[in-house]
Amino acid sequence: MFEEKKAAWLEKAESCRPALHTETVRPVSGMPQKALRENDSIVLDFGNHFVGKLTLRLRSKGSHPDAPAWLQFKFCENSRELNETLEGYRGWISRGWVQQEQVHVDVLPAMLSLPRRYAFRYVRIDVLALSSKYSLVIEDAFAETTTSADDSRVESLPGEEWEKAIDRTALRTLRSCMQDVFEDGPKRDRRLWLGDLRLQALANSVTYRSFGLVKRCLYLFACAADSEGRIPACLFTEPQVEGDDTYMFDYSLFFIPTLLQYAQATGDRETAEDLLPLALHQLTLAEKQFDPATQLIQDSDRMGWCFVDWKLGLNKQCCAQAIWIYCAQAALRLREDPALAALIEARKAAMLAHWYDRERHLFVSGRDRQISHASQIWAILAGVVTGEEACACLDAAAACPDALGMVTPYMMHHYVEALCLSGRREAARQVIRDYWGAMVRSGADTFWELFNPADPNESPYGSPIVNSYCHAWSCTPTWFLRSGVLEKNA
Amino acid sequence: MFEEKKAAWLEKAESCRPALHTETVRPVSGMPQKALRENDSIVLDFGNHFVGKLTLRLRSKGSHPDAPAWLQFKFCENSRELNETLEGYRGWISRGWVQQEQVHVDVLPAMLSLPRRYAFRYVRIDVLALSSKYSLVIEDAFAETTTSADDSRVESLPGEEWEKAIDRTALRTLRSCMQDVFEDGPKRDRRLWLGDLRLQALANSVTYRSFGLVKRCLYLFACAADSEGRIPACLFTEPQVEGDDTYMFDYSLFFIPTLLQYAQATGDRETAEDLLPLALHQLTLAEKQFDPATQLIQDSDRMGWCFVDWKLGLNKQCCAQAIWIYCAQAALRLREDPALAALIEARKAAMLAHWYDRERHLFVSGRDRQISHASQIWAILAGVVTGEEACACLDAAAACPDALGMVTPYMMHHYVEALCLSGRREAARQVIRDYWGAMVRSGADTFWELFNPADPNESPYGSPIVNSYCHAWSCTPTWFLRSGVLEKNA
Repeated sequence: MFEEKKAAWLEKAESCRPALHTETVRPVSGMPQKALRENDSIVLDFGNHFVGKLTLRLRSKGSHPDAPAWLQFKFCENSRELNETLEGYRGWISRGWVQQEQVHVDVLPAMLSLPRRYAFRYVRIDVLALSSKYSLVIEDAFAETTTSADDSRVESLPGEEWEKAIDRTALRTLRSCMQDVFEDGPKRDRRLWLGDLRLQALANSVTYRSFGLVKRCLYLFACAADSEGRIPACLFTEPQVEGDDTYMFDYSLFFIPTLLQYAQATGDRETAEDLLPLALHQLTLAEKQFDPATQLIQDSDRMGWCFVDWKLGLNKQCCAQAIWIYCAQAALRLREDPALAALIEARKAAMLAHWYDRERHLFVSGRDRQISHASQIWAILAGVVTGEEACACLDAAAACPDALGMVTPYMMHHYVEALCLSGRREAARQVIRDYWGAMVRSGADTFWELFNPADPNESPYGSPIVNSYCHAWSCTPTWFLRSGVLEKNA
Repeated sequence: MFEEKKAAWLEKAESCRPALHTETVRPVSGMPQKALRENDSIVLDFGNHFVGKLTLRLRSKGSHPDAPAWLQFKFCENSRELNETLEGYRGWISRGWVQQEQVHVDVLPAMLSLPRRYAFRYVRIDVLALSSKYSLVIEDAFAETTTSADDSRVESLPGEEWEKAIDRTALRTLRSCMQDVFEDGPKRDRRLWLGDLRLQALANSVTYRSFGLVKRCLYLFACAADSEGRIPACLFTEPQVEGDDTYMFDYSLFFIPTLLQYAQATGDRETAEDLLPLALHQLTLAEKQFDPATQLIQDSDRMGWCFVDWKLGLNKQCCAQAIWIYCAQAALRLREDPALAALIEARKAAMLAHWYDRERHLFVSGRDRQISHASQIWAILAGVVTGEEACACLDAAAACPDALGMVTPYMMHHYVEALCLSGRREAARQVIRDYWGAMVRSGADTFWELFNPADPNESPYGSPIVNSYCHAWSCTPTWFLRSGVLEKNA
């Protein structure tokens, strides 16, 4: 499906390929004051989070080098990574993501330019080998950094210090993720995910306003749809544009609100019309997940069939139904459809009838009737409950000690959005101040993929060593702070 | 000294820079029949010893790669290196010499060309990381190999099978060491040493006959002489020609017999005359090592002041005096000098008077009057004892259980030469057959830097992992077998 359109879509995507702004940066501290010996270790601190390539100007001191210099490099977004090692790593995500290299330098002096791109503030350099006859002088170290974000388009935020600090960190996060596409994280996975794109586009709309990049990413997803027209959860651009064979119920549907948000922010009806059939097709594909008798979505045990959050053990049934409603409502705003409007109402009603405990004010999910924060939040975002009822749900979840919590800033974004939607703007501000602010207080230059204040070692991958500390889905505080949604009259 | 000549000398050295012959070679076995997974390990066998650069043509199988491929390469001259690791390495020579790399491949398919040159027959590839979503296919693997040796100049050797096998291995050793200069070993140290050059030039004179390369190396050493005119033990050619600050009594003096041998092999009197003042100057510099009262050389405790052999504990006094005599005699053949001739005789006489036990037929060395094979051998090569007396010395050392033995093929070369000089040509053949033949029987494609039949783990560096298995100074069997010195009428 849509195959005949893909050549034109790819052309549009490529015509929006952004220029990369480059900047040469040097460490603000850590440059060694004396020549390095074997087993020495230094940490260059570039003072902020950057994405780019490293070059060292090296020379020897002492006798002419009579053996290669063997160096190990470790690029770290967060200082905690500096001392983490892969020894004993048993996580299920590839250890190939750890930004670590070993290099032999045969001839000194040398300009050593590492060919790969890294995301980092710190660079740890371990001298694995020299010889006893010479030591190593790092005469210069610099990084050629890139972003497609244009800093000049962003005005400074008025407000309190904590707001400015969180906004600055969010901007840095988004900036580092803005490369040739909106990447989810420049350390890992370095590629375009739909769930991240939706939130990046939101933050971008009130900051860098690189709408061409949003358009490019929408078209890339269109090109990456499979033979049934299903939009993948993420895609690759190298060596050529190709969708991942990972499909998630929520991510495919999020193409619709992302397209809507783009159209609203830009007024670009042409793109909206061009991509609307594909967007609506995601709803068609989702139909087979529903039981027409009950209008309830299936309760799948398949890990990852619907993402919602990295929280282990989270039952996704209630959230998935709410997300379908949320996306179907976005579709209605792109194109009127009375039949769809009726289906939405039927499915809202089914949720309330089957999964809503009216006495406890709690939505439940799955055959074990699991209670989670995520279920309440998505029910509110879908408009299944509103106003006082929505507030009661949030309060009930907060008061329920067994309610499954949230682990990602991505889920926390939806929590803050649900608070705003329920009229609790002060509480929303406070969550931003507490949750994202805690990362800032921990020294974050960019917001992290994962942050559980109760467990700093939490990782969905089996080890924090592969965690990303600059992750797109964490950048939305700048949207909350700049869009006006936190203001009473919004 | 000689500074005014160095520009012209460098020009002559550069004018003799050899062309490198390149050959693309592929593994004869070890190419994987199926796609590799994380933690897989393969060994490519290129079938013989080569010097060159590796390229792999890689692609993925399965889903689009969602994480970098992280590979470790280990280039091995000898199969024993395949399973050696640097863990616990405490040797004093740099671990940077171990031919091991780690590489991340971000995009597949890829042509992965490793930038460094290696010496190898085997390449072990360990898949340190992929992801669970793809496996790695090595579609092609090839090495661009180089040598400046011209195979077409060498005729096949008539003779017995063992002679042919040893000759073939010696030729391969010399061939791999013949690059831009005569390297000591293409794995390590990859540079020009005078002690190795002298033996390489000998083997070259009856095989590849690359006399331009010998001339180039002589001129490079001339350029590398220090401000006092002292010729260093070795030199570097990158980033520019520079002598190492390592000076050894024997190696500096060996410039003289190397120049003589070159002049005799080529008839190039012009070069001999051009470099003769520098060659003779090495004798002048050596004078301060002698006591004019006794005409005996000093007994130095300084490690490495005179090399002779890697045998630990070897006292060098007797050998050093004999080497001076040997080199001074070469000087006489380059230019008559009655005063030098008289001094040679005086120093021979002093050796016999002070260090020769006429009853036991043994030369002793140092204040502890150490008995070693090396002392007898160099006394014979210097002509201090000859004929039946020389044979008696060799027999006495062989019969002395405390006599310090030999560990390098370099020292063994001098042993075989001493046997020839004493008329024991059959014994010389037998040593070649036993000693170098044992390496061939152990599967050597090239002759090793070190070989002690009694201790295969012997290393002068604290661990065999940094040993070189293709080492120039081991290549001389081809000279013995081809020059006629093993024949009765030689």
